[in-house]
Amino acid sequence: MLTLPFYRPVLKGLEEVQERLRRLAQEVDDPRLAPLFAHPMEVPGKRVRPTLTLLAGRLTPFGQDKVSLMATAVELLHIATLVHDDTVDKAEVRRGRATLFKLFGPQVAVLVGDYLFATSAVLVCETGHLGVVKRFAETIMDLATGELQEHLSLGQWPQTREQYFQRIYRKTASLFRTAGEAGAVLCGAPEEWVAALREYGYALGMAFQIVDDILDVDGVGEEVGKPVGNDLKEGVLTLPAILLLERYPEDNPILPLLRGEEPEANLARALQMMRTSGVLQEAHGIAQGMLQRARAALAPLPPGECKECLLALADYVVERRR
Amino acid sequence: MLTLPFYRPVLKGLEEVQERLRRLAQEVDDPRLAPLFAHPMEVPGKRVRPTLTLLAGRLTPFGQDKVSLMATAVELLHIATLVHDDTVDKAEVRRGRATLFKLFGPQVAVLVGDYLFATSAVLVCETGHLGVVKRFAETIMDLATGELQEHLSLGQWPQTREQYFQRIYRKTASLFRTAGEAGAVLCGAPEEWVAALREYGYALGMAFQIVDDILDVDGVGEEVGKPVGNDLKEGVLTLPAILLLERYPEDNPILPLLRGEEPEANLARALQMMRTSGVLQEAHGIAQGMLQRARAALAPLPPGECKECLLALADYVVERRR
Repeated sequence: MLTLPFYRPVLKGLEEVQERLRRLAQEVDDPRLAPLFAHPMEVPGKRVRPTLTLLAGRLTPFGQDKVSLMATAVELLHIATLVHDDTVDKAEVRRGRATLFKLFGPQVAVLVGDYLFATSAVLVCETGHLGVVKRFAETIMDLATGELQEHLSLGQWPQTREQYFQRIYRKTASLFRTAGEAGAVLCGAPEEWVAALREYGYALGMAFQIVDDILDVDGVGEEVGKPVGNDLKEGVLTLPAILLLERYPEDNPILPLLRGEEPEANLARALQMMRTSGVLQEAHGIAQGMLQRARAALAPLPPGECKECLLALADYVVERRR
Repeated sequence: MLTLPFYRPVLKGLEEVQERLRRLAQEVDDPRLAPLFAHPMEVPGKRVRPTLTLLAGRLTPFGQDKVSLMATAVELLHIATLVHDDTVDKAEVRRGRATLFKLFGPQVAVLVGDYLFATSAVLVCETGHLGVVKRFAETIMDLATGELQEHLSLGQWPQTREQYFQRIYRKTASLFRTAGEAGAVLCGAPEEWVAALREYGYALGMAFQIVDDILDVDGVGEEVGKPVGNDLKEGVLTLPAILLLERYPEDNPILPLLRGEEPEANLARALQMMRTSGVLQEAHGIAQGMLQRARAALAPLPPGECKECLLALADYVVERRR
């Protein structure tokens, strides 16, 4: 974990985030609650979002305590959404172990998620920057809206690419955008750099989600950490599926799959067809376009380690295999 | 609705709250979402919380736009908690009609609740008062903690009165406290009045929940809007049940009820025993104590309509039959 070069300047910052999360879970006065709050924080993921905030927060040497609070809030908000997403999806495994939903049931998972959402908002309040707090709360609205749109679109066809892009903006890129923007704001960076990080975060988040959706078709199950083909099995139409349906609107195994006909055989056929028809390459090309947009957004930044790492982070997000 | 005298000075304010909530639900750009967001707001309840904020906000003539935003946020936060509580409790009916959970399932209800939580926080940000925003986010932590504590205590015996009071502070009185305090803060009231409203809100909220718990035993089903004896049936031990168990720790129908033995007969026996043993009077006495505390808290306020209405609101909360 965290051996890639772009993590180097923020390793200490990420450790602080993890330590702060650990303490937050322990601070509650009812001993029955601490393990519930601690569980979702125990196995950290790739931590791309707090890395983004911490890197953006290094554009100037100022306000580093606020940047650290914000990075913690961003990661905690992400964790809170995972707790509710797992509940909504009835997911039993996350990052290789049983989810809160699986261990304690949907009731506990809903309420623990609420608690973590609220705790992340309190952390942002501690930055003392009302504009950032408001952006953060609006981001929670976006995340919930994006998940709702995905849920309401389950098994629905036709869907347009534009609907897909709007949905993934809300459910993923909005938080990346806020993570980058807030890091720059809280270290007191000039408005031009703040705008650069906002645009960079947006494009990075879009690329991140598109690549996630490609890996769900193309990844190696163990590496990705969840079964391949999961989206389609659940009825979620992501970019590769939409591209395949655009190309083959009539004779397409996804159509009977959505109607529940021979689910296993049609899922296997659909995955195979996506892998051989070139739609994964096309989807990857769209992610590459977002990568270029993210790189271009950084043009106003001065050269240096911070910019280099943001460029490397963007490359990683698109080229990663898990 | 709203014919009681203490509503009079805030009738226009409550109308504004309702109108703002209506508009919020319509502002979303995906037409599938508007009815989901509108549903929980369509049938207003007693609106005790926004009434408290609006009355507190009339301590001075200033900042009335901020007070109105806050009253809306307070009501919306309450609505968001109801959406999640109904989901956690699998409640099918609320205020006489089907819940979001019943109509659209737990997935939609979780995500709509998240959206409403976040929207209430955005509203508070629009007051421009960071201290109030932080208090609001902390209140959401309290509400989630209180509900979790109730959930983890289901069917558990022994429990102390102190545990009950701590739980209802978190799940109910914390929001009353914030509702009163924030109204006073946002109209620019002096610190002494703010402290008075904070203490008043706390005591009012405690009394409100104790009376709610008495009405669950003693109320007329139709008037209360939900079946009588519901708490005990679900395994929630509230003040009357705790008092009955303290008095009769051995020969008590609640004990076999908690073990699932002859649930209907033991529930009927327990309700009957609570009604005849004097524990309801004792619980009502404790609520009266909170009422006195609420009234006493208002001592520093100048005489006038605002104070009169707050006194009358407190009397109503304790004497109401639904």
